[in-house]
Amino acid sequence: MADRAPADRQKAVGEIGLLEALATTRAIRRYTNDPVSDADLEQILWHAGRAPSGSNRQPFRFLTLRNGQNARAAKSLLGQSFRDGWNDKRAGTEGERPYRPSSFVDSMRHFVDHFEAIPVVILVCLERYRDPSPFEGASVYPACQNLLLAARALGYGGALTMWHLGVEDELRLMLGIPDSAALSACITLGVPAGRHGPLKRKPVGEIVFDDEWGTSPSWIAPA
Amino acid sequence: MADRAPADRQKAVGEIGLLEALATTRAIRRYTNDPVSDADLEQILWHAGRAPSGSNRQPFRFLTLRNGQNARAAKSLLGQSFRDGWNDKRAGTEGERPYRPSSFVDSMRHFVDHFEAIPVVILVCLERYRDPSPFEGASVYPACQNLLLAARALGYGGALTMWHLGVEDELRLMLGIPDSAALSACITLGVPAGRHGPLKRKPVGEIVFDDEWGTSPSWIAPA
Repeated sequence: MADRAPADRQKAVGEIGLLEALATTRAIRRYTNDPVSDADLEQILWHAGRAPSGSNRQPFRFLTLRNGQNARAAKSLLGQSFRDGWNDKRAGTEGERPYRPSSFVDSMRHFVDHFEAIPVVILVCLERYRDPSPFEGASVYPACQNLLLAARALGYGGALTMWHLGVEDELRLMLGIPDSAALSACITLGVPAGRHGPLKRKPVGEIVFDDEWGTSPSWIAPA
Repeated sequence: MADRAPADRQKAVGEIGLLEALATTRAIRRYTNDPVSDADLEQILWHAGRAPSGSNRQPFRFLTLRNGQNARAAKSLLGQSFRDGWNDKRAGTEGERPYRPSSFVDSMRHFVDHFEAIPVVILVCLERYRDPSPFEGASVYPACQNLLLAARALGYGGALTMWHLGVEDELRLMLGIPDSAALSACITLGVPAGRHGPLKRKPVGEIVFDDEWGTSPSWIAPA
């Protein structure tokens, strides 16, 4: 199992090409009531674990919240934190401008209002072996991206979020998460519902510099 | 351009499936002398920029070091830092055990000894909009993973490394990188040389917990 995808299902279902997936995978925040099957969740997490990490220590851990007793309590706690987080953000209390009505605002409202019904919530943790650092994410967020891409391959969608941090202490108590593990991300997963628009990204020429900071590459055409 | 891959080359070259790529993409540290073409590098960086980031701020910046004047000087500086870093690590001076001879040790030796000849070195930076945090990597390392996966799709290989931090101050001066930008990663890119073994990873059952920390999921078979 360590070197093969579980159940050899990958050939059958993984029809999407790599570049197309990288180009089009976006945050999904509306889900149908369909579950994520055991086999698919195992596949998704197996592929997440193939990501690189510093010295190949693989310090990432995936704590899944589905339908268990703790999961229900944790989802309820998280749901309130997500609603508080979104209400603050929407109102602009994080030092940002308030959001105006938009499909994004509708999607966020639906996301936080229906948090408890999300089929799978995954707390992605990092077993620390040194002091906290802005660079430790190099050993956990590539695995998060692999997770979201693998979900896409199997017909699911998800979002990487940070509002679990508002209830971190309560989550640690409730789920027995040791102090040695950072709560690096909270990823939601389910079957996408409704239509989802295209990604909105800056032109590549605006995020690439060549040979020195601030110099646009001659080899990228202006947008 | 913002919503389409450059030059529409992706259909022609992106034949590898998503799940296969996630399962098998590994760090590549030996390269041929073949260059990375302008068009391919643009493709790779375009796909990197499709990654998610907090509030879709897209704070990632890619500073490419190829054959320019600054690039040559920076690669020389980095090469020495990488050699120092590897010598320390191999000797066990980071509080770890010394490495015994292995193909990994050979590969690392080759990597650092030939650093200056690596076709493309990319300093991945994060334009900070708040204080440094262990969680800021959520907005830059998914893009790094997209970058490495897109490189794979186009026949290249790379490695995400951290030994640039040993010469961070000199790099900032040399390349004009402002204090507001974190130097989050140093990624090497080139055409893979020689044979590369399979990924070595823990069984998925060892990195997944269900409903509480430490509880293995009933829905994953033991390795």
